[in-house]
Amino acid sequence: MTDQSRPSRPVILGQNQYGKAENRVVKITRDGNTHHIKDLNVSVALSGEMEEVHYSGSNAHVLPTDTTKNTVYAFAKEHGIESAEQFGIHLARHFVTSQEPIRQARIRIEEYAWERIETSDGDSTLTGADEVKHSFVRKGQETRLTQITFDGERWQVISGLKDLTVMNSTNSEFWGFVKDEYTTLKEAHDRILATEVSAKWRYSWSSDDAPMPNWENSYRQARKHLLQAFAETYSLSLQQTLYQMGSRIINSRGEIDEIRFSLPNKHHFLVDLEPFGLKNDNEVYFAADRPYGLIEATVLRDGTEPQIPVDLTNL
Amino acid sequence: MTDQSRPSRPVILGQNQYGKAENRVVKITRDGNTHHIKDLNVSVALSGEMEEVHYSGSNAHVLPTDTTKNTVYAFAKEHGIESAEQFGIHLARHFVTSQEPIRQARIRIEEYAWERIETSDGDSTLTGADEVKHSFVRKGQETRLTQITFDGERWQVISGLKDLTVMNSTNSEFWGFVKDEYTTLKEAHDRILATEVSAKWRYSWSSDDAPMPNWENSYRQARKHLLQAFAETYSLSLQQTLYQMGSRIINSRGEIDEIRFSLPNKHHFLVDLEPFGLKNDNEVYFAADRPYGLIEATVLRDGTEPQIPVDLTNL
Amino acid sequence: MTDQSRPSRPVILGQNQYGKAENRVVKITRDGNTHHIKDLNVSVALSGEMEEVHYSGSNAHVLPTDTTKNTVYAFAKEHGIESAEQFGIHLARHFVTSQEPIRQARIRIEEYAWERIETSDGDSTLTGADEVKHSFVRKGQETRLTQITFDGERWQVISGLKDLTVMNSTNSEFWGFVKDEYTTLKEAHDRILATEVSAKWRYSWSSDDAPMPNWENSYRQARKHLLQAFAETYSLSLQQTLYQMGSRIINSRGEIDEIRFSLPNKHHFLVDLEPFGLKNDNEVYFAADRPYGLIEATVLRDGTEPQIPVDLTNL
Amino acid sequence: MTDQSRPSRPVILGQNQYGKAENRVVKITRDGNTHHIKDLNVSVALSGEMEEVHYSGSNAHVLPTDTTKNTVYAFAKEHGIESAEQFGIHLARHFVTSQEPIRQARIRIEEYAWERIETSDGDSTLTGADEVKHSFVRKGQETRLTQITFDGERWQVISGLKDLTVMNSTNSEFWGFVKDEYTTLKEAHDRILATEVSAKWRYSWSSDDAPMPNWENSYRQARKHLLQAFAETYSLSLQQTLYQMGSRIINSRGEIDEIRFSLPNKHHFLVDLEPFGLKNDNEVYFAADRPYGLIEATVLRDGTEPQIPVDLTNL
Repeated sequence: MTDQSRPSRPVILGQNQYGKAENRVVKITRDGNTHHIKDLNVSVALSGEMEEVHYSGSNAHVLPTDTTKNTVYAFAKEHGIESAEQFGIHLARHFVTSQEPIRQARIRIEEYAWERIETSDGDSTLTGADEVKHSFVRKGQETRLTQITFDGERWQVISGLKDLTVMNSTNSEFWGFVKDEYTTLKEAHDRILATEVSAKWRYSWSSDDAPMPNWENSYRQARKHLLQAFAETYSLSLQQTLYQMGSRIINSRGEIDEIRFSLPNKHHFLVDLEPFGLKNDNEVYFAADRPYGLIEATVLRDGTEPQIPVDLTNL
Repeated sequence: MTDQSRPSRPVILGQNQYGKAENRVVKITRDGNTHHIKDLNVSVALSGEMEEVHYSGSNAHVLPTDTTKNTVYAFAKEHGIESAEQFGIHLARHFVTSQEPIRQARIRIEEYAWERIETSDGDSTLTGADEVKHSFVRKGQETRLTQITFDGERWQVISGLKDLTVMNSTNSEFWGFVKDEYTTLKEAHDRILATEVSAKWRYSWSSDDAPMPNWENSYRQARKHLLQAFAETYSLSLQQTLYQMGSRIINSRGEIDEIRFSLPNKHHFLVDLEPFGLKNDNEVYFAADRPYGLIEATVLRDGTEPQIPVDLTNL
Repeated sequence: MTDQSRPSRPVILGQNQYGKAENRVVKITRDGNTHHIKDLNVSVALSGEMEEVHYSGSNAHVLPTDTTKNTVYAFAKEHGIESAEQFGIHLARHFVTSQEPIRQARIRIEEYAWERIETSDGDSTLTGADEVKHSFVRKGQETRLTQITFDGERWQVISGLKDLTVMNSTNSEFWGFVKDEYTTLKEAHDRILATEVSAKWRYSWSSDDAPMPNWENSYRQARKHLLQAFAETYSLSLQQTLYQMGSRIINSRGEIDEIRFSLPNKHHFLVDLEPFGLKNDNEVYFAADRPYGLIEATVLRDGTEPQIPVDLTNL
Repeated sequence: MTDQSRPSRPVILGQNQYGKAENRVVKITRDGNTHHIKDLNVSVALSGEMEEVHYSGSNAHVLPTDTTKNTVYAFAKEHGIESAEQFGIHLARHFVTSQEPIRQARIRIEEYAWERIETSDGDSTLTGADEVKHSFVRKGQETRLTQITFDGERWQVISGLKDLTVMNSTNSEFWGFVKDEYTTLKEAHDRILATEVSAKWRYSWSSDDAPMPNWENSYRQARKHLLQAFAETYSLSLQQTLYQMGSRIINSRGEIDEIRFSLPNKHHFLVDLEPFGLKNDNEVYFAADRPYGLIEATVLRDGTEPQIPVDLTNL
């Protein structure tokens, strides 16, 4: 369609995407009696030449979202799920290369971890049971995340985690801040520092010509560095802790160039027990819900360009 | 600080912001015995010269998030809450103009609507009660949203709503779509179309030199046009309905230049009753949770530049 | 099976029930171009002679939960959905009378209200559209509830609502309470009273020999009386308001004998603005999340026996 | 007050209770540099001579819910938190014995588990950090529960857990069930069995004259037996698995007499891949949300009376 044939419109279409969100796929792999689980929540977003479906309702370029759902399940069988990242790469490549009007695919995946139920202690011996290798309990800690974007040429992989709640019961201070007419906060020289980590890191890998990172190992290592930096930083502000977590990962993991954090400051207020004749020596805290401080920042390898969107929250 | 005095770092700081999120403020205004409510959830995000608090933990440029909370409550008294937008404008201006290191403020507000409890019917006459003007029930429909951003010079106001669930029980079709090897969906010539509208619209107003829109009336009108366009569109795809909702607002409201929608397709599947010897003549539906289609797009006035971030969801 | 043939067990089975929970059924009724919606979430719980499925895994007495789901959808077609209560009565009667081992059925239903999208104003005239009678927006206020229990002979119908949030901005006090060594609360002579009403009322109707109440009208009237009693009560305690809401319903509705309330006291704390040189004359409040007062009570018609379970919450 | 002086009322008060719900208390215990956390959510419900506050609004018998909150925090200091059960016993005894009008106290507690962040591996050696003993990550698996009830004489302790999600990827069948006219389900001879365990167990301990159980050890052991029974049971129905979990605990733990389970059957449906020319050999599953089977039952030691309320869910 040439520009001439296109009717002039007072209201035009901007960026748009569509797909099936939250396809819950569980894949069981059997190695004899030993089973393995991958438990994913896969969301597909496709974009390309989609003007007509918006303007006139013509679906001639629209692969149904139902088909994208079917593809997720079929690919779990055809390609297996080696890692969330590798699975997303298979899906994104498929949509972009198999459908002419689709120019870009973005696959977002949440992964839920499971651990084996232990049955091999003294008690199970008494019951005469063999060790069970098909029984699992959901780990329930953080949710692992990845987002794969492909435009037919370049890859962008942003992985991370959310809902990882951490706390330091000491080695945190907050003082020397600006005071204005609305400031009533007292300086703190020994406080609890707690947050629920949301972190997304971008891999430098972007081309089929380069070897991929080991996604599983990279996740484990990034998570470990993040936790250790949180634990080992003597903190004068949550911002400082944030930077330490980010720089530790980038310094330790050459495959990661950029990290975006969103860190709610989960306030733990020391309860005033003096009205009851009691001294609260940093022992009893009220864990508050709202409001909360919200600290967000990108840290990145010097010389690289930031690409991760800055809004990880809607609040 | 000059570039020379700044130590060279292998890992640098990118975009960052901080503030107090989810300050729940309820303001009662009394007009004699007639009371009025404004019920807001206010989140503050400030950015500026904040390198040192990240690198060294120095809080010398940091106005505490606790102070930003206090400011919200004090401003509710000092300025009142004429509208969420006007309240956010007061707050953003204050932070940017009163604190040298703060170069930009973003205020996000959720507003919850209340309606009066009616007491003036026959029954209350029997009880002898006067009409009550201080008693409310939460409306419970959509949540109204606004986001005010100010850099000391230019304003950006993006308002909207979320969680407005709508349904057409007919006048929706879906056919003529692409079929590939993973397509099993049947064409539909009379289906339910339901979605939970998330919409954010950007006002063209950006300078103190221009008169502000009437925020309250603009919201009411935009919401009305959105609902009417949903109802009156004979839909061949949810994308088409989306475009109709957006263009109706932009055509009707000169103060709005751009709208971003995120529309989950809340699938209602016709239940197969044939195994029970029953014919389901578009009567009985299963309302599914996951997965769901997710349709997202920006529509904008021709000649304007899109500014609303495209990611309104994390899935 | 006689008691002799049953093996003696050190651990026995107590009360048990099973079924399919949260069957989401949407029923469209067409009256020409005018459509009507019923939107329900139906949960089935069956009990009876179910020892063997627990002890040995024999399913010989077990109607699958999948079948109970199918029955919900088939009955929506066969019987229609006149009201949630009437629909539950059809279902409960079916399970108890058609399956010998099933001795009792309990049907719980949540109902979500919808209202029509208005299109008949001046604007839609301009667009030339006829009035639309198939387009709806979810009301989003309270969720209506009912629970039907049938043992083959007697009926018990408990209906109600949850998530109805109400607020009085004055006419509430709290003083004259007990003070012990842990009491620091100041007396209040003009405070906000807000709660999120959860109420369940029991109908006296219990036999097929008696005429049923008009379920739809009874719900509307009970809800109206509850709201008006909340609005019109000058409250010295939330307990007093609770009793007034309950007694107003029982006095006004002869078909209702008992009501159970669970009322969280949604605290709105007057913000101390004195540090900022401002006087807060009952204008600016902080709406707190947790902790909250929780007031629960049954009120009932004198001479009747309470039957509604007292635990409506798990906290 | 004698019956004669009490006005006759057409609507009377039934069971009632009040208190402060969801007091979030975090207690840090310092053993040198090694810190320990207890993280609780405590809800207090008191009942007794409370007619007047309902009928007339007189608060003369009402200890404010604010005071019950203060007591929770003061007791965390005065008594410490040895276990949730022991803490609840201190609180319940206090309210009943210190306030004449209060005849019964019920304390419900949720406990959130934390584990230490490990810093003592090779990496932290490289950074030169000592091992950190004040840094924690929330475990995030099940929530531990307890409910303490005291009437001044007898104790009832019901403990348990919720949100513990488990899955067997084989050794589960479902066949031999009843078929009626609405049955379409096919028999299954190898299926996934998954559930989110909600379990509440009652201790036989009820008097100050008897020694208390070791609450911490009892919880760990009950949880272990529950998980092992789930893993080791070859299941013909979820009911059978439920009974095995319950009887394993009661047989192994003499201090526990009764358990109530609420087990949603988290359906994992084998995806039909035949339309795509693929064979799904128990590999690829769709994890469904709603509807779900819901299996609930009490199991108890022969010769004891059931006391745990049967409604653990509102659906």
